[in-house]
Amino acid sequence: MCQLFGMSSNAPATVNFSFTGFSARGGRTGEHADGWGIAFHDASGCRLFVDEGSACDSPLAEFLRRHPFKSRSVMAHIRKATQGGVTLTNCHPFQREWLGQHWVFCHNGDLKGFEPSLRGLYQPVGTTDSERAFCWMLQELRDWFPAHPGAPLPGWAELAPALAELSAHIAQHGSFNYLLSNADALYAHCSTELSWLQRRPPFSTVRLVDCDMSLDLSQTNALEDCMAIIATRPLTDEAAWTAFTPGELKVFASGEEVWARTTAPAAARDVDTRIAWAPRWSVPASALQMAV
Amino acid sequence: MCQLFGMSSNAPATVNFSFTGFSARGGRTGEHADGWGIAFHDASGCRLFVDEGSACDSPLAEFLRRHPFKSRSVMAHIRKATQGGVTLTNCHPFQREWLGQHWVFCHNGDLKGFEPSLRGLYQPVGTTDSERAFCWMLQELRDWFPAHPGAPLPGWAELAPALAELSAHIAQHGSFNYLLSNADALYAHCSTELSWLQRRPPFSTVRLVDCDMSLDLSQTNALEDCMAIIATRPLTDEAAWTAFTPGELKVFASGEEVWARTTAPAAARDVDTRIAWAPRWSVPASALQMAV
Repeated sequence: MCQLFGMSSNAPATVNFSFTGFSARGGRTGEHADGWGIAFHDASGCRLFVDEGSACDSPLAEFLRRHPFKSRSVMAHIRKATQGGVTLTNCHPFQREWLGQHWVFCHNGDLKGFEPSLRGLYQPVGTTDSERAFCWMLQELRDWFPAHPGAPLPGWAELAPALAELSAHIAQHGSFNYLLSNADALYAHCSTELSWLQRRPPFSTVRLVDCDMSLDLSQTNALEDCMAIIATRPLTDEAAWTAFTPGELKVFASGEEVWARTTAPAAARDVDTRIAWAPRWSVPASALQMAV
Repeated sequence: MCQLFGMSSNAPATVNFSFTGFSARGGRTGEHADGWGIAFHDASGCRLFVDEGSACDSPLAEFLRRHPFKSRSVMAHIRKATQGGVTLTNCHPFQREWLGQHWVFCHNGDLKGFEPSLRGLYQPVGTTDSERAFCWMLQELRDWFPAHPGAPLPGWAELAPALAELSAHIAQHGSFNYLLSNADALYAHCSTELSWLQRRPPFSTVRLVDCDMSLDLSQTNALEDCMAIIATRPLTDEAAWTAFTPGELKVFASGEEVWARTTAPAAARDVDTRIAWAPRWSVPASALQMAV
């Protein structure tokens, strides 16, 4: 299996400290040595780095542990291959464009028998179940939210319920922990294992679980800073780490949890006939579970 | 304006030497300091790096000048902004997926009044004329080569004539020098300025134009190696650099020039009605101008 790391912040922030601990699991403190990747997302664009080596000793990962790229939304992945060979094409995060936005996605889990009908809008480049799921989700979202010139783009409040349903559908096929982001919001779905915490003042000194390294957050953050950290397993010794509920989709924007819903894996349906069953609904505002 | 660099090779090769000379033009020996990017493409996937700083003093560019990523197809770009602000979203190369392949594109030029009808299959994320042209070309190629399950994917022999026509159409709107690649082939179109050379044994010592640096290619290449280098302006003191003809599209695969055609900019047509005039032809083999 793989591991996930995510960050949402209300101001551009570096993740060198967290990435140092996380990437140690890519071959040193963990067995996830079959590739890694990280995407830094903000209003000015998206930087995506992938490498098929192990994160703990990759020269590019070392560069990223030292260089302070600032971003308001980050996701990273370390891979333990289950489906698909150890190649660059199979490294997460995967990236596609929809609505004139860069969408990035990474997955921890293993989907069995998930062979959806992909109509060509998005095709996997590699051979993982993960990229197949990502392509299918974007295809279905395009059906749900067809583009209308001049119409406002769907935001997280509209997209989250649709993603919850799509995620429950895919989760019938196996474990489906994922992170998805378009810069505007970070969507985090837990099928088996995912934790998170929010950091806000007063900031304290925190210690990595995987490295002998501490950071005094009060020296690196301003009083108005606020951020959410998501990881397969807690990265630090902070007590505030909280496990997601299996089946839960949370949405983070500007460092805040803004939406959450837990959905049981949907009853078995034939994926290839989803077009027939997918409702083309729009979400009434009252159905939204807002900022926690 | 911007500058382009491309490389096609019959075996995975590093471009540290060439990129050192090319990236010097991004702020030191040239004024192209508004962002840069480089894509390394091969059968195992695509690595794409972009940065909105100047290539000559970017820490990421410095890492790439030193780290030997090997690839069979590379393109790089240094930007002097003409349309679109200095942001990450406006840095080339741009990337989209089509046919389950990563397509990357970078452009040197300035297109006036090019506002094609984009139907939503591909939308620009940034605000450059270049990304708009890339999105439109992919949209039109999708129309030309609709996906048929089980059918062989179109290769460069089918795609090149279509790209030549699309390029001539866009070139009506201004200068349109570009590089396009899907790993399988590197397409290079000259509207105003582009040169290339092929390197094959016997390899000699070459010297960069922009830096006090030489490389003995016989020490770094094997006897069976062969590569094509493309650049807006020659990067080295080699006599073999040859200018493209304005209007020329060349295709490089495995280090060889495998196709070339020169097309005058097409007569003025209404871009928005292109769907009506675009032929859905397939290319007879006899029409191809093969390996030079």
